[in-house]
Amino acid sequence: MLARPDYDRLRVLRVTPRNPLNIGAAARAMSNFGFLRLRVVNPYQVGFREARSAVGAGQVLANAEEFATLAEAIADCTLVVGTTSVGPRDIRNPLHVLAAGARQIRKHLVQKLCHEAGEPARANNIALLFGSEKFGLSNEDLSRCHWLIRIPTREEHRSVNLGQAVAICLYEIARDAKSAPSLATPKKNPATASEIERLTVILFDVLSTSGYLKPRSAAPSQEKIRHLVRRLRLTAADAQLALGMLRKIKWKLQSADDRGAQP
Amino acid sequence: MLARPDYDRLRVLRVTPRNPLNIGAAARAMSNFGFLRLRVVNPYQVGFREARSAVGAGQVLANAEEFATLAEAIADCTLVVGTTSVGPRDIRNPLHVLAAGARQIRKHLVQKLCHEAGEPARANNIALLFGSEKFGLSNEDLSRCHWLIRIPTREEHRSVNLGQAVAICLYEIARDAKSAPSLATPKKNPATASEIERLTVILFDVLSTSGYLKPRSAAPSQEKIRHLVRRLRLTAADAQLALGMLRKIKWKLQSADDRGAQP
Repeated sequence: MLARPDYDRLRVLRVTPRNPLNIGAAARAMSNFGFLRLRVVNPYQVGFREARSAVGAGQVLANAEEFATLAEAIADCTLVVGTTSVGPRDIRNPLHVLAAGARQIRKHLVQKLCHEAGEPARANNIALLFGSEKFGLSNEDLSRCHWLIRIPTREEHRSVNLGQAVAICLYEIARDAKSAPSLATPKKNPATASEIERLTVILFDVLSTSGYLKPRSAAPSQEKIRHLVRRLRLTAADAQLALGMLRKIKWKLQSADDRGAQP
Repeated sequence: MLARPDYDRLRVLRVTPRNPLNIGAAARAMSNFGFLRLRVVNPYQVGFREARSAVGAGQVLANAEEFATLAEAIADCTLVVGTTSVGPRDIRNPLHVLAAGARQIRKHLVQKLCHEAGEPARANNIALLFGSEKFGLSNEDLSRCHWLIRIPTREEHRSVNLGQAVAICLYEIARDAKSAPSLATPKKNPATASEIERLTVILFDVLSTSGYLKPRSAAPSQEKIRHLVRRLRLTAADAQLALGMLRKIKWKLQSADDRGAQP
């Protein structure tokens, strides 16, 4: 049996966009293919206002949600997918070519979540991230992604124009919409990005207090740890469990510290 | 056995382009996916010069060929494919969704032509036409196309931005490049667009002289006849044959006319 993917669960994220033409182009492609939920993270305000007021900007831009940080913009998502042209920099995330990645996304868009007694029902939302025109997604952005997709191009010319990249990705996700299998068994409730974030923050805290994280090397190490936590693919229940453990550890470390600091 | 399609045989045609940004966007997508032969028909000169001089315009634009008319730009092509968003106007050409059309194009790009004794060897070139930003391809342009492709979109928003449309079409043609079957039997030498044009022009001439084509209704009737001639999918040899016949008929009609006109 085939089920139609729920396009409304895909959030297209433009992270630190600058050029209003590119914001408009992304919105237009979204409207063409029926993905109507645009989120804009930390936009250059002049550009964003310009894009919103452009002729034919339409519903997608009018309804776009704005966020100050990526963490907030992905908080309600259970899958975070980045896009990259894989330049010289090291990629730590798993990487799929677009066709394979789009298949995964379609699967996710038909997948329903089961929720256990006491747990709130939640949507299985996906965030699809597009970085800035010039620099793509930052390493910190990438550390929040479960995996990445890449549009296959010539080796000699990998960097795809942003508006075109959005159009190609959404075209591919919509391309075989009718062939997405309906998944009979609902998936276990995965943790949302905001739950993972809460867990990660307290883990940083514990690792700093314990001396594992040195203040000097904090940023790269934090990225490494973010990647690790994402690889675990925790369920909501497991994230709660781990959070409880870490809170306990944190409390213990602090009270030991307090005792040590006593005169 | 699989054969790699010969990308060099695909000509991307921008017909009466206006906006330099869109010319540049088309050229960039071509370079991304490895289709390097751009032809520009009757461009708005200021826009074309601007596009050519844009930063990063690169080889594709530098090597772009310019033509005054579509007929000249497709003269060496054996397959002419148009693109359309299928608006309200009547489409007379066969229409494929992009994925199916791209499959045909890939097949054409691996297909070799056999040439008979006395015939010159020729490349099996394809023209892929993109119309103007505002109006798409004209009815006259469409009458020169063997068939059309359409990017599947929402009903409510069919018109795809031009640069994005080029990118999506080329992505799709390149998408399954490795799965294009190698065609063991070379195809019979099809007539080129210029041979078909020569045939069509003499056919118009004959039909006018014979009174079939009325001067008043000439344009729509000519389009109908162009479609008919294309549907025949003549080989080069058959086109020669038909041309010989029509020349004979023309000569006969004229000499009859001359006799009738004698005092």
